[in-house]
Amino acid sequence: MNFLNEVAQHYPDAISFAAGRPCEDFLDLAAVHRHLDLFAAHLREKFGGDEQRVRGTLLQYGRTKGVIHELVARHLESDEGILVDPEAVVVTVGCQEALFLTLRALRRDDRDVLLAVMPTYVGAAGAAHLADMPVLPVAQSDAGIDIDDLVAVARRAREQGLRPRACYIVPDFGNPSGISLDLDVRKRLLEAAYDIGLLLLEDNPYGLFDAGPAGNTPLPTLKSLDTGRGVVYLGSFAKTGNPGARVGYVVADQRVGTGADGGTELLADRLGELKSMLTVNTSPIAQAVIGGKLLEHDGSLRTANERERAVYRRNLRLVLDGLARRFPADRRPHVTWNRPSGGFFVVCALPFVAGDDLLAVCAREYGVLWTPMHHFYAGDEARREIRLSVSHLTPAEIETGLDRLARFVAERDT
Amino acid sequence: MNFLNEVAQHYPDAISFAAGRPCEDFLDLAAVHRHLDLFAAHLREKFGGDEQRVRGTLLQYGRTKGVIHELVARHLESDEGILVDPEAVVVTVGCQEALFLTLRALRRDDRDVLLAVMPTYVGAAGAAHLADMPVLPVAQSDAGIDIDDLVAVARRAREQGLRPRACYIVPDFGNPSGISLDLDVRKRLLEAAYDIGLLLLEDNPYGLFDAGPAGNTPLPTLKSLDTGRGVVYLGSFAKTGNPGARVGYVVADQRVGTGADGGTELLADRLGELKSMLTVNTSPIAQAVIGGKLLEHDGSLRTANERERAVYRRNLRLVLDGLARRFPADRRPHVTWNRPSGGFFVVCALPFVAGDDLLAVCAREYGVLWTPMHHFYAGDEARREIRLSVSHLTPAEIETGLDRLARFVAERDT
Repeated sequence: MNFLNEVAQHYPDAISFAAGRPCEDFLDLAAVHRHLDLFAAHLREKFGGDEQRVRGTLLQYGRTKGVIHELVARHLESDEGILVDPEAVVVTVGCQEALFLTLRALRRDDRDVLLAVMPTYVGAAGAAHLADMPVLPVAQSDAGIDIDDLVAVARRAREQGLRPRACYIVPDFGNPSGISLDLDVRKRLLEAAYDIGLLLLEDNPYGLFDAGPAGNTPLPTLKSLDTGRGVVYLGSFAKTGNPGARVGYVVADQRVGTGADGGTELLADRLGELKSMLTVNTSPIAQAVIGGKLLEHDGSLRTANERERAVYRRNLRLVLDGLARRFPADRRPHVTWNRPSGGFFVVCALPFVAGDDLLAVCAREYGVLWTPMHHFYAGDEARREIRLSVSHLTPAEIETGLDRLARFVAERDT
Repeated sequence: MNFLNEVAQHYPDAISFAAGRPCEDFLDLAAVHRHLDLFAAHLREKFGGDEQRVRGTLLQYGRTKGVIHELVARHLESDEGILVDPEAVVVTVGCQEALFLTLRALRRDDRDVLLAVMPTYVGAAGAAHLADMPVLPVAQSDAGIDIDDLVAVARRAREQGLRPRACYIVPDFGNPSGISLDLDVRKRLLEAAYDIGLLLLEDNPYGLFDAGPAGNTPLPTLKSLDTGRGVVYLGSFAKTGNPGARVGYVVADQRVGTGADGGTELLADRLGELKSMLTVNTSPIAQAVIGGKLLEHDGSLRTANERERAVYRRNLRLVLDGLARRFPADRRPHVTWNRPSGGFFVVCALPFVAGDDLLAVCAREYGVLWTPMHHFYAGDEARREIRLSVSHLTPAEIETGLDRLARFVAERDT
């Protein structure tokens, strides 16, 4: 994504529908101080006032799998209906480290491959690249994943002597697609994964940001439906906690072989062993920032993010309504887009191929940025689709940005 | 090191010469708050009071190579005489991530190997394992490294079709050996590395903890002597800053090929690209904790650690004097040890082989822990040597611990 960063740096005044950064309006350093103190007070109570243990937990080398694992488990129960043994939680340096550790643990040799719904999050492709694991694309379909294709890709891979180890998917408001899997698809996906013996890597950074009406019941995560330990659940606090803490986690309650002796261990423990060689442990100070926020809201990040949820809901509506006003179906330029029910992203199909070259033109001449969708595919061939991020713009920026986008599209479509 | 952790957990009341943790006496949460605020004030001044930029730098996704790179460069000039472009600094999640990133960048295929002075730090061996890079041992010798052996190992590897990419070494108060390279050896090592086209990975976690008399001039780092960009310098703030921040860095000012197009880039930029797939960026909150401490002491961690330096100096003296009193040269049991001039570690040779089994006996029956040296070698065969860490014990614990060790050795040596 270096090219995209360069464009963004080159045109700092352009309105950016490109970056998927969380809303900054409610971040402040005072909260960091407060959350640190809250977590320290929690430790003080837990350790019966033993200041040396409090200090040792917060400021010394510490437990490889983390020190907020119990709070993470409580949050998962409260917000996601996921019941998990805290020992199966590994707190990581953002979800990115969780992804890498999981793939590195699953990879034994060159025959191991990852399946991923294409288009896919660039971080997943990056982690797979770093772990030397080829990625086999699975078709997306309007349902979020083409399950028949998943089964076919896995079968073909096995016929070629490969070992499909897992399929990576974002079931809620996917990045980049914005698509969510409906309940029936979730259940069928799980059954298919059990049938063909494939782990599902469920990445859920946006699940709390459903834009439905108040009181709307969000769809259950794959992990909460997983009765067969077929799902490794990847979590991030970058959008719901604090992006500056760089804290994520993985729930890995599977049993895996330890190697020569024929024994088994928890996958989470295997990930911990790998983590000890990668980053040793996640900063307990950074963990405390998240831990304090979890404590402040009694484990519920849904509650903690009411204001953020309202911003994202408003922005998604403004972008969808704004697109509809600017691109009526019966007039040129002919632009179509999907209608996600939450999350950060909308995908538009333009009437022409929109690659990096056109992005540069659009940034320079029209002052608006977006992400060419081809970056989320294995190949490099430019496509007609672009991704719009709605997460960190003001209403005025959205309106001006869409005006500029509409002018750009109209003037190219001649 | 799981076995060692288990022993330590099993005998929490044993006196531990095993863990190499830094002294905790001067760590406190108030300093974390203060350092955060100091760094925020620094950003406020730098950004002319633009609170949004301050907040964005501290609490949002951020620059992959880090936000305290300029302060790190100032510290390196002030404390180590190393002049470096801040762009060549990558701030990492502890030195462990710096190690992994460097090895992962150097590895192109199965022919790439790492050389390392044996015995070697387990974290270096672990990072190499994770990066799928075999480690070829280089003999240590009393000088810290047998340079003739280094040259011979590299030559033999090349004859076998392998590509020795770098040699890992801790030139100051090595872990586990405690040995430091003298100035002449440093210069000869650099010349040899230039001659045979091998990078040196200089890891320097203990360099500030020389135990010489006040006003003693420490030996120059390899990097400060490096006129040929032959040294990648690995730094840690775990001992000099705050272990709970998990912040380290790597100085990588070499030019490397970018691949197909025949261009070159700074190795630091290549490491940044890999980091974007591994941990995205190091927590800016954690970086701020270190940045604030650097600001508080005008970039000098030598000054910031005067109290810690005094503790380590005292402890090293107590252990060396205490060994001398308990194991006179002319009497049994015959125990020998080296006499490091700083750092955290002393290596003792016992009159018998001291492996994990004897450590368990010693922990259970004598209440004292140490590290069997075989853990720092590639093989698994137990040896007579043990490593004693002096870093986080009180004088009373050292005396009692050495009494227990002496009783253990005397009772086994019959």
